[in-house]
Amino acid sequence: MTLSQGTDLQVCAERLLDDIAGFAKFGERPDGGVDRIAGSPADLEGRAWLLRRVAEAGLAGSTDEIGNVFAAAPDGEDRYLLTGSHTDTVPGGGWLDGAYGVIAALEVLRTLHENRHPAARMVRMTGFFDEEGARPDSPGGLIGSTAFADSAGIAGVEAFLELHIEQGPRMETAGWDLAVVQGIVGIDRYAVTMNGSANHAGTTPMRQRADAGMAATNLAVRLRQIAAAIDPAMVVTVGFMEFVPGAPNVIPGEARLVAEFRSGSEHALDAVGSALRYAAQTVAAAERCTCDVVRISAKPVTVFDARLCRMLETALDRAGGTATRLLSYAGHDASVLAARVPTAMIFVPSTAGVSHNPKEDTPEPQLVRGAQALLESVIEYASAKVRV
Amino acid sequence: MTLSQGTDLQVCAERLLDDIAGFAKFGERPDGGVDRIAGSPADLEGRAWLLRRVAEAGLAGSTDEIGNVFAAAPDGEDRYLLTGSHTDTVPGGGWLDGAYGVIAALEVLRTLHENRHPAARMVRMTGFFDEEGARPDSPGGLIGSTAFADSAGIAGVEAFLELHIEQGPRMETAGWDLAVVQGIVGIDRYAVTMNGSANHAGTTPMRQRADAGMAATNLAVRLRQIAAAIDPAMVVTVGFMEFVPGAPNVIPGEARLVAEFRSGSEHALDAVGSALRYAAQTVAAAERCTCDVVRISAKPVTVFDARLCRMLETALDRAGGTATRLLSYAGHDASVLAARVPTAMIFVPSTAGVSHNPKEDTPEPQLVRGAQALLESVIEYASAKVRV
Repeated sequence: MTLSQGTDLQVCAERLLDDIAGFAKFGERPDGGVDRIAGSPADLEGRAWLLRRVAEAGLAGSTDEIGNVFAAAPDGEDRYLLTGSHTDTVPGGGWLDGAYGVIAALEVLRTLHENRHPAARMVRMTGFFDEEGARPDSPGGLIGSTAFADSAGIAGVEAFLELHIEQGPRMETAGWDLAVVQGIVGIDRYAVTMNGSANHAGTTPMRQRADAGMAATNLAVRLRQIAAAIDPAMVVTVGFMEFVPGAPNVIPGEARLVAEFRSGSEHALDAVGSALRYAAQTVAAAERCTCDVVRISAKPVTVFDARLCRMLETALDRAGGTATRLLSYAGHDASVLAARVPTAMIFVPSTAGVSHNPKEDTPEPQLVRGAQALLESVIEYASAKVRV
Repeated sequence: MTLSQGTDLQVCAERLLDDIAGFAKFGERPDGGVDRIAGSPADLEGRAWLLRRVAEAGLAGSTDEIGNVFAAAPDGEDRYLLTGSHTDTVPGGGWLDGAYGVIAALEVLRTLHENRHPAARMVRMTGFFDEEGARPDSPGGLIGSTAFADSAGIAGVEAFLELHIEQGPRMETAGWDLAVVQGIVGIDRYAVTMNGSANHAGTTPMRQRADAGMAATNLAVRLRQIAAAIDPAMVVTVGFMEFVPGAPNVIPGEARLVAEFRSGSEHALDAVGSALRYAAQTVAAAERCTCDVVRISAKPVTVFDARLCRMLETALDRAGGTATRLLSYAGHDASVLAARVPTAMIFVPSTAGVSHNPKEDTPEPQLVRGAQALLESVIEYASAKVRV
């Protein structure tokens, strides 16, 4: 058997779907959702089950110190393509977020292994620990992938591929079956405080007010226009807003909001930050208020490996269905790996864009097509390596 | 002595100011403010002191069941003009809110009495209990005046006059010394709930969001324009705003605000209510949200007695200084009395419009001029009565 025969291989749809469903038993909720918080009994049992499934496929399973799970062919090479996702869920999460990428990686590896395909030796599966950061003592998620990227083990990794559900509605809305993810948006968060004068809501004439609430609401309304003008693909969210003292008959003397911007361009994020500061000053002055703007967090844009992305496009064409390019608007373990090795991702659609929710779902044919696309990608990667 | 000689009388500025300062000792704070919550030891001691000052002036003091204080000439008539205000303060209040109108009424009565002016028999002083509603168990303020208006005692009251600080900046800004208050604004409060979909702040495209926070902020911004278009003298305040769940990375699935409108016209308040409901529907629909609008309270407009107001204008001219007409944008005991007897109010300016605050103040010459205006008003009332 030669590498060029790879495209004839097919993942086993039944085994793939059975194992996704089997993994979802760990932390299963009556409403169909999954509670498999990293470190919980459900998580420990789930990872033990995963290692049994690895062994049953004749593969070599292992776990590192932090709790990441790995699988390789018994004769696996020391330098390899790593593929997988994370094993944990948020509280009240769904059956696919993370788990899908892990089980699909297992299915790809065992399909290659049982067909004695040479690419089997060049690829390993992983299930990363605590991506969600939902443990009460979690320092914020991406724990397992960060620990692995900082360990000696990273030396063997030539590249990383992560298959994941989109967790948004873009693909379903546009009718795309598969997507090559070009990168992950950067995320900047700003805390804005408007300072005015708390005063009597009756006796203070409108023109003599320093209404911090009015300044804050005016700013919130403007931010959407500003973001759209700078980068139509940017998303902006004002998820928090509070008036102080918050009484119906007192003009707010202080108003606080948090604005979050996500964009694939660092330049756009910088520009929107400048525009935010200017707009905040302007609306504050118009309301006789002062303002305080602080960037409270900044996650840089992740740009995936261009060569790997082009390779994925070729492979996804072979998997059938329609394929597009996308940015990920949510964070993934792939952002951690991308800082160390060539990295890329594949998305399949999310039904109604719902995720982190028991209703999270993707039609089974799409799940099978996604795993097949991952198989094609691994074979294409191995083939290209041999050709080089 | 005849009634027409009344205009030669002058209140005693020193005694007036000494007694205002003396009353402020009860509940005095280190910052110059006053804590004289109705029912507190400071309030009980303050009212006992007030009754002593009444007795020292040779007047007949009394207290009713709820705690209202009264003073009359020993030979006072059964039917009389009542004048005064309230004896309590808010926590951290100032030295003038309520107290000024009470002490000025005492000064007017004793000036008439010691000068053996016939009007002394036609007027009585009052200090109402618990106007502010700041007691932990207070059912909302205006307690003493409401109890008195519902008691047999109201039968003796021919009319009511209340002298008070403006508690806003209008008079100081425009340079007015005195104001005849034409009425008290009505106050309508609405609770608005916007219902959207809580969703991922990254993966949900802007055009597919149902952002309840955006709907609420859009509405808040519109309300000011709506109010100004309907009644330029109306004030509108959004003092409370809350997003649910309130996380920076979650699109608000629910947003709540409370909007308060104050106007001298019931028609304007009705119109703004209709406009609010329409605007809420419109902005909610534009954001793919639904909304729920509830009028949570409605205080009707108080229109003071037109004949009494005209009489006050004549009297205020005699007191010197510049006089204007105003609406009161805050509630007063006079609104309770106005439902039973001809009622009107006189305002003096508040420095920087500050009230319910230790910094509450009015220049002493303005306080003296206000008390003199009250004296002129009482004499004018008695004179008109004799003329009729």
